Amino acid sequence: MNISEIQTASQKLRDNKLFELFVVSVIILSALLIGAKTYPIPTTILQAVTWLDLGITLIFLFEIVVRFIAEPKKTRFFHNGWNVFDTLVVVVSLIPIDDSEMALIGRLVRIFRVLRMVSIIPELRTLLNSLLRALPQLGYVLLLMFIIFYIYAAVGATFFAHINPELWGDISISLLTLFRVMTFEDWTDVMYETMAVYPLSWIYYLTFIFLTAFAFLNMVIGIVVNVLEDEHARERAEQDEADGKATLDDLQAEIQQLKQLILQQHNNQPKS
Amino acid sequence: MNISEIQTASQKLRDNKLFELFVVSVIILSALLIGAKTYPIPTTILQAVTWLDLGITLIFLFEIVVRFIAEPKKTRFFHNGWNVFDTLVVVVSLIPIDDSEMALIGRLVRIFRVLRMVSIIPELRTLLNSLLRALPQLGYVLLLMFIIFYIYAAVGATFFAHINPELWGDISISLLTLFRVMTFEDWTDVMYETMAVYPLSWIYYLTFIFLTAFAFLNMVIGIVVNVLEDEHARERAEQDEADGKATLDDLQAEIQQLKQLILQQHNNQPKS
Amino acid sequence: MNISEIQTASQKLRDNKLFELFVVSVIILSALLIGAKTYPIPTTILQAVTWLDLGITLIFLFEIVVRFIAEPKKTRFFHNGWNVFDTLVVVVSLIPIDDSEMALIGRLVRIFRVLRMVSIIPELRTLLNSLLRALPQLGYVLLLMFIIFYIYAAVGATFFAHINPELWGDISISLLTLFRVMTFEDWTDVMYETMAVYPLSWIYYLTFIFLTAFAFLNMVIGIVVNVLEDEHARERAEQDEADGKATLDDLQAEIQQLKQLILQQHNNQPKS
Amino acid sequence: MNISEIQTASQKLRDNKLFELFVVSVIILSALLIGAKTYPIPTTILQAVTWLDLGITLIFLFEIVVRFIAEPKKTRFFHNGWNVFDTLVVVVSLIPIDDSEMALIGRLVRIFRVLRMVSIIPELRTLLNSLLRALPQLGYVLLLMFIIFYIYAAVGATFFAHINPELWGDISISLLTLFRVMTFEDWTDVMYETMAVYPLSWIYYLTFIFLTAFAFLNMVIGIVVNVLEDEHARERAEQDEADGKATLDDLQAEIQQLKQLILQQHNNQPKS
Repeated sequence: MNISEIQTASQKLRDNKLFELFVVSVIILSALLIGAKTYPIPTTILQAVTWLDLGITLIFLFEIVVRFIAEPKKTRFFHNGWNVFDTLVVVVSLIPIDDSEMALIGRLVRIFRVLRMVSIIPELRTLLNSLLRALPQLGYVLLLMFIIFYIYAAVGATFFAHINPELWGDISISLLTLFRVMTFEDWTDVMYETMAVYPLSWIYYLTFIFLTAFAFLNMVIGIVVNVLEDEHARERAEQDEADGKATLDDLQAEIQQLKQLILQQHNNQPKS
Repeated sequence: MNISEIQTASQKLRDNKLFELFVVSVIILSALLIGAKTYPIPTTILQAVTWLDLGITLIFLFEIVVRFIAEPKKTRFFHNGWNVFDTLVVVVSLIPIDDSEMALIGRLVRIFRVLRMVSIIPELRTLLNSLLRALPQLGYVLLLMFIIFYIYAAVGATFFAHINPELWGDISISLLTLFRVMTFEDWTDVMYETMAVYPLSWIYYLTFIFLTAFAFLNMVIGIVVNVLEDEHARERAEQDEADGKATLDDLQAEIQQLKQLILQQHNNQPKS
Repeated sequence: MNISEIQTASQKLRDNKLFELFVVSVIILSALLIGAKTYPIPTTILQAVTWLDLGITLIFLFEIVVRFIAEPKKTRFFHNGWNVFDTLVVVVSLIPIDDSEMALIGRLVRIFRVLRMVSIIPELRTLLNSLLRALPQLGYVLLLMFIIFYIYAAVGATFFAHINPELWGDISISLLTLFRVMTFEDWTDVMYETMAVYPLSWIYYLTFIFLTAFAFLNMVIGIVVNVLEDEHARERAEQDEADGKATLDDLQAEIQQLKQLILQQHNNQPKS
Repeated sequence: MNISEIQTASQKLRDNKLFELFVVSVIILSALLIGAKTYPIPTTILQAVTWLDLGITLIFLFEIVVRFIAEPKKTRFFHNGWNVFDTLVVVVSLIPIDDSEMALIGRLVRIFRVLRMVSIIPELRTLLNSLLRALPQLGYVLLLMFIIFYIYAAVGATFFAHINPELWGDISISLLTLFRVMTFEDWTDVMYETMAVYPLSWIYYLTFIFLTAFAFLNMVIGIVVNVLEDEHARERAEQDEADGKATLDDLQAEIQQLKQLILQQHNNQPKS
């Protein structure tokens, strides 16, 4: 059996719905295993879990190899971010680790194997891609929001640091405190504490809440409008052109042909 | 009086507006009774309440029987989920229960009788159906959100379990804690606790909040866009076709007829 | 000076922009006075405040009388809810009250004088009317939400009353507790308390949050869609008809006239 | 080198992309410096920070002077709010301050230098302007909301002041407490406290939450509808007119020309 036959067989296997279903089942099993490990387990079962874990890693390795062989252009395989992610997860899972520090990273990688669900199911991949595509449109609103946060954090760290260093000690702690205020999480406790020293500091909190809420609202509306417009444009394009309905331009062209016809007739008549 | 006469009488009774109003009143009475039972009641009144309860159950039984007889095809009666629900509620209410364990279930069934309001009032039924129809569209977003939750819960249970077993003991407790974080309910207390051990754990919470908030936002926008599009499509269809207004295609057809007419004239002229 | 002259003078005064501005200023003064009274005031100033208060009441009385005289049909005056409200506020303000119980009601009525702002400024009146018009559309969603609340409150009062009577004592306290849970206000404290007795009671809270959040979301979307559609319909109506632009129906009519003309020509030709 | 040459050179420098990039970098450096100052810094580095700070101020001064010289009409320079803001920030930064009171203001002004980011980057300026433009549309809703807040605060200060003066002492504290209730921040603690005295005071809180939530919702929807309509109008205008597509009016004009032609032909025929 030569190389091209192996490639064709790999492609067949990769595109097989049953194989995909099998891999999805293995991912779900792997997710359940991760969940099970967070419960106290007797040592005898733990042994079985370790073997299962190895089995899952080997199945994932096999699946990646199949996908790699099935790829006609090997260099293009790693241009796809999901393939790189899948390979990395499998490779790190294979490294034998004894050190307790490294063991944690090993567990983390095993957890991220659940994300393989997204790389396998096309609908989830599409959804995630469309979520990521929406982010850059928000670039400037996020920058503006960060500027608001930064200015308020600097003011907070300057004026409130001596009141409560745990909340306003330096600018990074202040940024975290402000994020807390934005989520309304016990924000009045933070405010009452500083109001005891600066009675007017409620202005600081209220303007911050208004500014961030307003900027956030605009961000949301921005996304809604963008999404609606895209849908609208797509819908109109489909409706107008795809199913061959008459457009105003078509009508105009036909009326002009009519005019031509009548003018022609007009020119013909005197001769008759 | 033969069977078909009974069926016709049942149908008349079922479609009678007064009968519907009477049943709705009985449901409201049943709801009030349930509410009244949560207050401390003297034993003498409790006796009356028990009799009232039995009366309501019998009226409901009568109403179900009327609806069953009125149905032309008996087998189709139980295809309607609401009919099954109504029958179940009445049947369970009729079972005499003494055991205190079962008594609680009996009380629960009596509470669910309030849901009969939905099965009786058509507008509520339509509303609930349209709510339920909106759910499957969100399937993949919900799956993606569950994957995010699961990964974060596994990470939380792995790293934070020894800090606070009550919040991060195993993966199911962690899922509940993460839901709490998503609702911003004292999430900073949870965070400060883990930050005392892992100072960088704020990254865990902030990325989680951003990811879930972003996914949730997209879900909401998804529903809004879907609903608006449905309305739009329905509206356009109504406007264009139903009330016989001219469409661009109509105009095109008429212009082509004109062209035919002129061409015909054109052909006639040379003869004249 | 006879009655009709008084009426004309009243109408002139009522529609005078300066008079409206004066009344608005008096309302603002009245609002400031209410605010001032919540601060500790020396007795000498309190005397002045009492006189000012009487002055404001008399000006309001004068304004109502002017509006009443200006009204051509006296019986129609009280068909307007705002007129009834204004009259009531003034009349109650005039009743001399000594009893401390009644004094509180007197203060309450004075506070509600701020609402006269809405009855005077037409833009606010329009805004409030449009807010109120949006309510009935939500009727069935609100009913559905109340049914959800009632069922959960009945279940809560049945099962949790012995755990914490202050939160679940009877159905009305339970309804308040559930409203608190819906606003995410320390809802986990409520949940952890019942989970200590019934470990599965998190299902109760999570399903409740999902159901109400989902129903609320649908309500919001319902309003958005309604508002957008109204705007849309209004806009289209304005655009199509008001400014005399051509509609497809106009074009169809004209094309049919053309056809008539050509057919007429066609019939004339043979004779020539 | 005469004045007009200097002006041309200034304009070239101002419009130079590299110069803009340099100024943005200096602003970012200035922001980082502000952040760094909130951490404890050794005295030796503090000296360097002070020199860096002076350097940044001088660069900003230079940039403002360049922009001022580049402006053809000097008087128009200060009509632009951002120019006034930039100049003020630089001028105040230059004033030498020793007094500790004034030193705080100096630090505040240095923090506001981060806002120069907005005045330099055109996209941020546009974004902020569009945010500000959205505000006045909300004028009457904000007024209505303030009236609701004011009435509830007056009622609260009247009835609850003796229960907890820290929350309801006077009308301004009550306004802050109500804002807290609107953000759902420990609002049940506030409510339970007053319910101990007035058991029915939950009505006060629930109606307040409903009214403000409803008004807020309408505000959000108002903005969404406005934004969508603007986009819609702009889109339609672009689509219809800009790219020379046929409109219904064009078609009507052409059909009328056709009619003229046919009528002309009709009049010619009898003669032939």
